[in-house]
Amino acid sequence: MVDILHRVGIKAPLDQVYKALATSEGVAGWWTTDARGDSKVGGVLKFRFTRDGKELGGFDMKVLELAPGKRVLWQVVEGPAEWMATRISFELRQEGAYSIVLFKHEGWKEPVEFMSHCSTKWAIFLMSLKSLVETGKGQPTPDDVQISDWH
Amino acid sequence: MVDILHRVGIKAPLDQVYKALATSEGVAGWWTTDARGDSKVGGVLKFRFTRDGKELGGFDMKVLELAPGKRVLWQVVEGPAEWMATRISFELRQEGAYSIVLFKHEGWKEPVEFMSHCSTKWAIFLMSLKSLVETGKGQPTPDDVQISDWH
Repeated sequence: MVDILHRVGIKAPLDQVYKALATSEGVAGWWTTDARGDSKVGGVLKFRFTRDGKELGGFDMKVLELAPGKRVLWQVVEGPAEWMATRISFELRQEGAYSIVLFKHEGWKEPVEFMSHCSTKWAIFLMSLKSLVETGKGQPTPDDVQISDWH
Repeated sequence: MVDILHRVGIKAPLDQVYKALATSEGVAGWWTTDARGDSKVGGVLKFRFTRDGKELGGFDMKVLELAPGKRVLWQVVEGPAEWMATRISFELRQEGAYSIVLFKHEGWKEPVEFMSHCSTKWAIFLMSLKSLVETGKGQPTPDDVQISDWH
């Protein structure tokens, strides 16, 4: 089992960061503009990725935990084979002027090349989250930063 | 054992990407401007990080492998405890118009919080490498993108 790990610090109160993670409207501001579904515990969020008018696919995530100001946990229930049953968590804590986000995408069966891609891409999206909360403007898909031929 | 993995694609020939990885002048353009030492196999590269005139520390890396257009491998011989004896590799290959860089920082004993930080920061620096090779301008320390209270 191999995990993707990241850490960013966001100059904003915890509740603002939490809101950007715990609601589909929030996630639409930094990951993908096409974010829908039921964001309550037990509900399923649907994230779709469209570029140049073409749907590239997406992920359905079951919301497993929501602890305001502390933690958000999703499990992938639909998506690419490598993502199936993996879990994505965001742990939050205050550290001076910063809200620290500890990100983990765990449960990958193999460290395939697609995992390396997703690791870099998650870093880019976490910087988009930081930007959204600090400035009011993120860079969600389809305006996300391109990192390679796989976008 | 846990690894940091990343993948970026750079729109440039392999030899340009290789040059930015295999020489201290190259690395100075995307990681830290204070990059010195002997970049031949068996030599030791010294990377130092200075911000606001204050040296924040750095890393000494022994060059273990240099395969032009294919692979660069370093081993940490001096630096923070968590980095000691870890290895950093860059695997290169052509994919259409892109040079693909598969990055691995392996040999971490524990997935400590500092590892999460380094994972995000490596993504940022690989994007700086991409920018350097594609546009001629990277964002090495001290002008690197700030990701948190740990910078």
